[in-house]
Amino acid sequence: MINIGLIGFGYWGPNLARNFFLNPDLQLCAVCDAAADRLEAVSCQYPDINLYCDADDIFSDSAIDVIAIATPVSTHFELAQKSLQSGRHVWIEKPMTQTVAHAEQLIELAARKNKVLMVDHTFVYTGAVRKIKDIIEQGDLGSLIYYDSTRVNLGLFQQDVNVIWDLAPHDLSILGYLMPFEKQAVSATGSHYYGNGIIPKSLVTIYMQDNIIAHINVSWLAPVKIRQTLIGGSDKMILYDDSQPSEKVKVYDKGVDLNFSKEELYHLKVQYRVGDMYAPKIEDHEALALETSHFADCLLHGKEPLTGGQAGLEVVQVLVASQQSLKNRGAPVKIN
Amino acid sequence: MINIGLIGFGYWGPNLARNFFLNPDLQLCAVCDAAADRLEAVSCQYPDINLYCDADDIFSDSAIDVIAIATPVSTHFELAQKSLQSGRHVWIEKPMTQTVAHAEQLIELAARKNKVLMVDHTFVYTGAVRKIKDIIEQGDLGSLIYYDSTRVNLGLFQQDVNVIWDLAPHDLSILGYLMPFEKQAVSATGSHYYGNGIIPKSLVTIYMQDNIIAHINVSWLAPVKIRQTLIGGSDKMILYDDSQPSEKVKVYDKGVDLNFSKEELYHLKVQYRVGDMYAPKIEDHEALALETSHFADCLLHGKEPLTGGQAGLEVVQVLVASQQSLKNRGAPVKIN
Amino acid sequence: MINIGLIGFGYWGPNLARNFFLNPDLQLCAVCDAAADRLEAVSCQYPDINLYCDADDIFSDSAIDVIAIATPVSTHFELAQKSLQSGRHVWIEKPMTQTVAHAEQLIELAARKNKVLMVDHTFVYTGAVRKIKDIIEQGDLGSLIYYDSTRVNLGLFQQDVNVIWDLAPHDLSILGYLMPFEKQAVSATGSHYYGNGIIPKSLVTIYMQDNIIAHINVSWLAPVKIRQTLIGGSDKMILYDDSQPSEKVKVYDKGVDLNFSKEELYHLKVQYRVGDMYAPKIEDHEALALETSHFADCLLHGKEPLTGGQAGLEVVQVLVASQQSLKNRGAPVKIN
Amino acid sequence: MINIGLIGFGYWGPNLARNFFLNPDLQLCAVCDAAADRLEAVSCQYPDINLYCDADDIFSDSAIDVIAIATPVSTHFELAQKSLQSGRHVWIEKPMTQTVAHAEQLIELAARKNKVLMVDHTFVYTGAVRKIKDIIEQGDLGSLIYYDSTRVNLGLFQQDVNVIWDLAPHDLSILGYLMPFEKQAVSATGSHYYGNGIIPKSLVTIYMQDNIIAHINVSWLAPVKIRQTLIGGSDKMILYDDSQPSEKVKVYDKGVDLNFSKEELYHLKVQYRVGDMYAPKIEDHEALALETSHFADCLLHGKEPLTGGQAGLEVVQVLVASQQSLKNRGAPVKIN
Repeated sequence: MINIGLIGFGYWGPNLARNFFLNPDLQLCAVCDAAADRLEAVSCQYPDINLYCDADDIFSDSAIDVIAIATPVSTHFELAQKSLQSGRHVWIEKPMTQTVAHAEQLIELAARKNKVLMVDHTFVYTGAVRKIKDIIEQGDLGSLIYYDSTRVNLGLFQQDVNVIWDLAPHDLSILGYLMPFEKQAVSATGSHYYGNGIIPKSLVTIYMQDNIIAHINVSWLAPVKIRQTLIGGSDKMILYDDSQPSEKVKVYDKGVDLNFSKEELYHLKVQYRVGDMYAPKIEDHEALALETSHFADCLLHGKEPLTGGQAGLEVVQVLVASQQSLKNRGAPVKIN
Repeated sequence: MINIGLIGFGYWGPNLARNFFLNPDLQLCAVCDAAADRLEAVSCQYPDINLYCDADDIFSDSAIDVIAIATPVSTHFELAQKSLQSGRHVWIEKPMTQTVAHAEQLIELAARKNKVLMVDHTFVYTGAVRKIKDIIEQGDLGSLIYYDSTRVNLGLFQQDVNVIWDLAPHDLSILGYLMPFEKQAVSATGSHYYGNGIIPKSLVTIYMQDNIIAHINVSWLAPVKIRQTLIGGSDKMILYDDSQPSEKVKVYDKGVDLNFSKEELYHLKVQYRVGDMYAPKIEDHEALALETSHFADCLLHGKEPLTGGQAGLEVVQVLVASQQSLKNRGAPVKIN
Repeated sequence: MINIGLIGFGYWGPNLARNFFLNPDLQLCAVCDAAADRLEAVSCQYPDINLYCDADDIFSDSAIDVIAIATPVSTHFELAQKSLQSGRHVWIEKPMTQTVAHAEQLIELAARKNKVLMVDHTFVYTGAVRKIKDIIEQGDLGSLIYYDSTRVNLGLFQQDVNVIWDLAPHDLSILGYLMPFEKQAVSATGSHYYGNGIIPKSLVTIYMQDNIIAHINVSWLAPVKIRQTLIGGSDKMILYDDSQPSEKVKVYDKGVDLNFSKEELYHLKVQYRVGDMYAPKIEDHEALALETSHFADCLLHGKEPLTGGQAGLEVVQVLVASQQSLKNRGAPVKIN
Repeated sequence: MINIGLIGFGYWGPNLARNFFLNPDLQLCAVCDAAADRLEAVSCQYPDINLYCDADDIFSDSAIDVIAIATPVSTHFELAQKSLQSGRHVWIEKPMTQTVAHAEQLIELAARKNKVLMVDHTFVYTGAVRKIKDIIEQGDLGSLIYYDSTRVNLGLFQQDVNVIWDLAPHDLSILGYLMPFEKQAVSATGSHYYGNGIIPKSLVTIYMQDNIIAHINVSWLAPVKIRQTLIGGSDKMILYDDSQPSEKVKVYDKGVDLNFSKEELYHLKVQYRVGDMYAPKIEDHEALALETSHFADCLLHGKEPLTGGQAGLEVVQVLVASQQSLKNRGAPVKIN
C-alpha cells in the first residue's frame, strides 16, 4: 500500500482525495490545508486520516510516500521541490509551474531522485480524448493539419490575472497528447479589461512543424459555455464537443483534396469529399479514476507517467511564450 | 426610373439582378458577362434586357445611370474607376478593392464626380444585425467590450488564396456597423496548407480604442458550418448564431462586475450577474431587398449610403493589415 | 414528349409546374386556376403555355396527355375521375380523396382505363427517407418494432378543420413506404379548440401486425417547429430529424435484448446494447424532381408508380378511421 | 428535532437519506433494507444511525416519528398503512399505490390519525416547474389549452411491466400542479414487445374540463433521451426541455387568434402572433432539498403538503385508467 498526503483541499483537492481514497493501491493518509473549515470537511468524510494546517507537517510525516499538490500555481515549485528533495513521489496540479526554469528543475530533480513526477492533465484521461487518440493512431484522419478549440464561459477571475493560465492548459495538454509535434512559435492576442492587468479573453496560435497549426480561443467573458474542438486531418475531421451529454466525438468523412498535375501548376484543382459521419461509443469512466490508477501503476512498477514532467513543461513553455506575445499584441515568440 | 447595368453574372450576380429587377425605383436594363452560357441564363429570366459580353459595351450604353460590379475583386478597381469617370453611380461587391490606395482613390473620385458609391456589405441589412444595432443603441449592452466571431465551414478555394479575403469581410462589415470604434492594430495568424501559398484557416485580432477587441476565426477546413458571434457588453451579452433557423439573436443578462474600493486596490472583488435571456423577434426580410431599397433611396435623394466607400475602405484596411501580419506569424500591424 | 396540364396554382402548384417544366420527358403545356392573379404569375414564368380559368378547358384541350391536380382535397375525386374518364393519366396531391370509397373508385377506374394514377407522397422521394429505406432493406435495424413521429408547428388553419388531414399524410406516406405492414386498428385523440369543430392537435396510434405500432403527434399549436421521427428496430434504431440542416438521419447501435430461459420464466433478464452512432450521407436532390422523373418513367414505360392509388388509399383509410376515433375520444376503429 | 426512519435503500433511497440527513429540522435515525450490502453502504455514510433488515423493526422503534417509504410500489400500501396506524407521519414514493382504493384508504387513514401524508412528486419542487407555475399564475400564458410531453429514453424494464407506471407519474404530477383541472377521461395506446405483457412504449391522452387536453408520450425504447414539454396558452406558449443544461424554460410570445364576427360565422379568421421569446433565470437548487424542507415545515406546523395524498391519488387514477384503456387499444376510460 502506497501512502499519499494531499496539500490543498480547495476546489479540486476534494476530487483528488476521493479518487485516492477509492483506489485500491493508494492510501490517503493525510490532508493539509491552511483553512480550518476545509480541514473539518475532510475529517467528516475521512475520519481516519491525519489533518495538518502546515505543509511542513506533511513533509515531516514519515509514513507518507507520495505528496499531491493542489495549491495555487505560485506555490507549486517550492512544494514540489521540497517533496522530491525529501524523497517523495509527486502529483502536481496543472499548470505545473510558473516558469520554464522551474519546470526543468523539477524534471531534473525527479530524475536524480528517481521519483515519479506526475502532472494532473486530467483531460488526457477522459474517454473522449482517449477515443480520439485511438482514431488518430488507426490513421483514420490521415495527416493531421490543425487543432482549433473554443473554450469559453462566464468565468472566475481568481488569483490568476490571465485567462490563458486558467483555461488554455486543458487544450495544451490535449494537444500535446493527440498531436505531439515540435512547436516552433506562439502568437497570442487578448483584451485588457478596464485597462487593468486582467486579460479575460485571449486567442493563442501555436505554429508547429510541417505547417501544422493550433488555434485556441479562451474567455471568461462569454454568456454561454462553449467547448468545441475541431481536429482536421487530410482524410477525416473531428468535432469534439465536450458540452454535449452524448455524441461528444463526431468523425466526419469530409475533406478537401488538392491535386497538382504538370498542366495545372498554376490552376488549382480542388475536390471535396463529403461522406458519412459517425459518433463512436465513448467509455464512460471518471477521468480522474483512470488517471489515479495510472499513477499507482507508475508508482508500483517504476513506469514513466503519460503526463509526466515533460508534458507539464511543454504546457508551461506555451503559457510563458503566450504571456510574452500578449504584451506585444501578438508578436510571435519562438519556442525552443 | 433609374437604369442599372450589372457586370458579372456568376455566383452573386443573379441575386443582385433579381433584387434590382424587383425594386420599383430601379430598372435592370443590361447585364454583362464574358461567359455565353451565363448570358443565356440571363435572357431566359429577363428577356427584355440588353446582354453584353464586354464591359466596354456597358460603359458605352448611354441609357445606363448606375453600374453594379459583381466580378472578382482583382477587377473591382478598374471597373469602378471607369464607371465613376463615365459619370455613373456605382454598386460594388465586397471586398471593395485589393489595396487601400485603390479604395481611397475610388472614394475621392466618387466625391469629385458627386456620385453614389455603395459597397455591398449585405449582412448590415439583415434583420438580425439590425436588431442587434437597435439593442446596442438602446444601451442595453452597456459599454461594448468585445466582438468574437467564428465563421467556418468546408469551403471553396476559389480565386483567392486566403480565406481572410473570402470570409472575414462579413465580420468586418458587421463589426464596423455595430462597433464603429477606431482601429489601432491587427494581428493575424494562419496555417499554410501543404506548404503552398493557400491560407485556408486564420485567426484575426483587431485592437481598437478603449481596450475594445475583436476576434475573428475563419476557416475553409471545418467539417461543420459554424456561424457564432459573441458580442460582450458591460451589462449584457449577445450570442448571434446565424446558422439557427430561429432565435438567431439571444440577449443574456449576464456579466462580470469589477468593483474597486480603496481598501481593495489589490484585492479584486468580482461579482457575477446571471439573469434572464431573451430572443427578440427578428424581421424576416431578404437583406438584399432592403439594401437595394436603401441604394435606390440614396440615388434618388443624394444620400450617403450606410455602407459607402468609407465602410468599404475600413474593411480593406483590416484585410491588408491581416495579410501583412500573416506573413510574420501574428506580428501586429498598425492601422492608421 | 408527354404533355401535362396542371389544375391549381396555389401553394404547391408552382413547385409542380417548375418540376414538370424542367423534366426533359414532360412538357408543361397548360395551367388552370380560377384566380386571375395566379394565372398572371404563371404567364410571367411560363410565357408559352396555355392558361385556363375553368377546369373544363383542360379536359377539352386534346393536346394534354396527363392532368395534375393540386386543388383542395374536396375537389380531388371529381377532377381525377373526369381526367381518367377522358383518357388522361393523373397526378394527384395528397391526401388522395376524402373517402375510402372515392379512393377505391379511382383505383378501379385507372386500372380499367389502363392509366397511370400517381399520388404525390413527396416525402417518399427525399434523400433522407430513401436512405432509411436502404438501411432497413439491408437488415441493419433487425425486426421493426415501432414508428414514432412528432410533426408540430404554429400552423395554418386553412380549409381543413382537422390537423390530421394536413400533417399526418406526410407520416402515413413515409410509414407505408418504410414499414409496409398490415394495419389493424387506429386510435386517435385530440383537442377541440374553443369548442368549435377545429381539431388543431392530435395523437394517432396505428396498430399493425406482429405488435408493430406507429405513434404520430401532429399539431398546429406548437411554438416551435419539431420534425422528429424515431424508428425502432430490434438491432438498431433511427432518429430522423427533418428540421436539421445536416445529419438528418442518425442510426444508433442501441437496443434492449430480452432473454428468456427456463429458470427465468418469471425473472426477466434485460440486456442493453449501446454502440456507435452514424449519420449516413444523404443524397441532396429535390424530392419533387426525383418524383417527377419516376412519374415520367411510369408514363413512358407503363410502370406502376411507387406511390400509386394503393398507397394513396392506405393513407385515406387511416385518416378516415382517425376522424371516427377522434369523435369517440380514442375508441379504436378497425382497418380492413 | 423530528426523527425519521427510511425503508428502502435502492435506487432513490440514498438521495432521500442524504437530504433528510442534511435538513436541519429532520434527523435520519434509522434505515431499513433487506439487502445486507446496502445496509453496509448506509453504515459507511451514516455511522451513527440504526440499521434494520426487517421493516417491522422500524415500526417497533419508538424513537421514530416519520417513516419514509422508498420500496417497490407493490409494497407501498401495506407499509404506509402500518406506518399511519402506528402513529407515524409518512413520506411515500410515487406512484403512491397500485390501486385507487388503496390511495383513498391512505388519505382517509392519515386524516383520521391527523398525520402528514406526503407523496414524493419531486418534479414539482424543481426550479423549472416552479418558474413555469409563476408564469402561469401571473397570467402570462392566458387560458391554458394543452400540455404535451415527450419523455423517452433507452430505459429500464424493472419490476414494472408497463412504462406508464415508470415514466408517466413525472408528467402527471407536473400536470396536476401546473394545470389543476378536472379530468374527465383517459385514452392510452401502446405496443406489446415480443407479444409478452411488457408495454415499453405508450401514448396517454387526458381529456380535461373546457376542452383542455394533455398528451404524454413515454417510452423505454428510444435511442436518445428526450424530455420535451410544450404548454400551450391562448396568449403565450412554453417549451420546457429538461434535458438542456441551461435555458430549460422558454416562453414564446406566439399564438393563434380566432376572431368570430357575425359575418364570419362560417369564415374563420385566423391571425398569428409571433413575438419575442424569453428564457427566465431558473433557481438552481436540488429539488429534493426544497421538498424535504417543505415536508419538515408541514410536520412542524401541521400544514397540508403541496403534494399530499390527494395529488398522489390523482396520479394513480390516471395510471389505473390508462392501464384499462391500454387493454382496449385506446378506448376511453372515464375518470370520476
